[in-house]
Amino acid sequence: MVSDQFMSVMPLALDPSLFTFRDSGRPARWWVGIDGGGTSTRAVVADVAGRVLGRGEAGASALNQGVDQAWRHIGEAIAQAGVPGLQLADCALGLGLSGTGVPAQRQAFVAADPGVARLALTTDGFAGLLGAHGGRPGALLISGTGSVAEALLEDGSQRMTGGWGWQIGDEGSGAWLGQQAMKLAQAAFDGRAPRGALAESVYAATGRRREDLLAFCAQAGQGGYASLARLVFENAHDPAAAALLDAAARALDELAVALHPTLPLALAGSIALRLAPRLSPALQARRVEPQGDAAAGALWLIQQRETSLA
Amino acid sequence: MVSDQFMSVMPLALDPSLFTFRDSGRPARWWVGIDGGGTSTRAVVADVAGRVLGRGEAGASALNQGVDQAWRHIGEAIAQAGVPGLQLADCALGLGLSGTGVPAQRQAFVAADPGVARLALTTDGFAGLLGAHGGRPGALLISGTGSVAEALLEDGSQRMTGGWGWQIGDEGSGAWLGQQAMKLAQAAFDGRAPRGALAESVYAATGRRREDLLAFCAQAGQGGYASLARLVFENAHDPAAAALLDAAARALDELAVALHPTLPLALAGSIALRLAPRLSPALQARRVEPQGDAAAGALWLIQQRETSLA
Repeated sequence: MVSDQFMSVMPLALDPSLFTFRDSGRPARWWVGIDGGGTSTRAVVADVAGRVLGRGEAGASALNQGVDQAWRHIGEAIAQAGVPGLQLADCALGLGLSGTGVPAQRQAFVAADPGVARLALTTDGFAGLLGAHGGRPGALLISGTGSVAEALLEDGSQRMTGGWGWQIGDEGSGAWLGQQAMKLAQAAFDGRAPRGALAESVYAATGRRREDLLAFCAQAGQGGYASLARLVFENAHDPAAAALLDAAARALDELAVALHPTLPLALAGSIALRLAPRLSPALQARRVEPQGDAAAGALWLIQQRETSLA
Repeated sequence: MVSDQFMSVMPLALDPSLFTFRDSGRPARWWVGIDGGGTSTRAVVADVAGRVLGRGEAGASALNQGVDQAWRHIGEAIAQAGVPGLQLADCALGLGLSGTGVPAQRQAFVAADPGVARLALTTDGFAGLLGAHGGRPGALLISGTGSVAEALLEDGSQRMTGGWGWQIGDEGSGAWLGQQAMKLAQAAFDGRAPRGALAESVYAATGRRREDLLAFCAQAGQGGYASLARLVFENAHDPAAAALLDAAARALDELAVALHPTLPLALAGSIALRLAPRLSPALQARRVEPQGDAAAGALWLIQQRETSLA
């Protein structure tokens, strides 16, 4: 027995290189989906009929923060779900964890398995893609602090555009918008651009002297720049800010079109959602609401695996 | 007595905030100009009639590498000039040193003065400006690894545009051109841009896989990106590369025009010189050959000070 929601369509044969499996050979009594990032871990616990029994949350489980912490917070998030009698040893875990793309981190995480019945591990991004389209082919355009677009193709393979990092890439993301706002403030300071409302807002946030701007940039990092992105939205009446919002939307358009020209497209991340009205009509026509989040995608992944084993 | 070359025009009353002076009260027998950066220190030694007696070179004297090293290399560069009988205690030093803009470094350097007769300290950039125009009003557009434009105005004050650093600014510099080449290679990898000759050259330099490009960016820094700039010039037949060269020239145009609309403009740095043919006709019309380098500018500075004391 599987839930109607996910298994009404024949599942894709997913490219095996996208996942790591580990199997104790013991039966599972619970299916668990985990979405783990740099801030928090979210768990959704289901029974082996696919019925959701509870949800929990705990601290970060991004693998670059250490695999012992990751396993500890995963255990806490599952315990938070409050399912009576649940033991980790009886769980089959689907995991979408940030940092899984780094082989050494992935291997260390699997090696530290505290003895779960089974696990299926992928990146948080791919779990988000599985969740958004219920495991069916589709595309996901994410723009929050960073930006990336990912697709699950009809042949079960994955494709990605963007995601090159905030220092040089992540066009159309929050960090990118904040960097563009700072570049505008610098140009306005020099007299290379007008001192419009957006530039004045940046000065209000960072200081008005050359050394203030330099000091902000020296310590900003991805999060610091992303914190300036809201100034661009708040000053959309300033032509310079409106131009940046349009440029961000164009950059996201390019990511989504290069990713795949026709697949249904879900949006995720606060910046993508705020820029949605500025996306091209072609993208608007492809847009669908995501079916579920990354934890739902991770649950789908282990559910599919358990079902294929049955 | 002063040399005709520098003092034939009434010197400007330079803004005192641009310099730090220290005076032992003793007379000087030699005037010395020092240009000190992150790689080397160059000295030019003159007599008190302004006649150049010799030149020398030694290791780095950028203040962020330590003031003891700076003073040691300055002494070595002066000694290398081979002027018979020269004693540091009898020298009046003009110094254009990288890192002088940081107050703590500037103060530490002055405090470590080994006992020279007099010193006048400014940044290497401002010494370059004084050298380029022989202490007269003028503008200097520098694009090498980084980019900045500086002007000495008729009222003796300084003005600067650009110079915001390679991570977010320095448009039209070598590091900026290299970053744009990498962004193009990333877009071509994604299918967001054609795989032209420039993108192929970047792959040949960094590797063709996503992880190769990510690994290059993770360790590149300013110097690593600047090393890609030559690929843009070498592939100027590729429309994407030509567009980047034009964009770099436009960025330098904007720096120079915002700096000052009419002052005579000298160019410095390998990228500025290579981009010169692409600069606007208005800038071409303002262009002059630099009269001297930063060491000559530092010599001019102490010469003017000594003359005004006499």
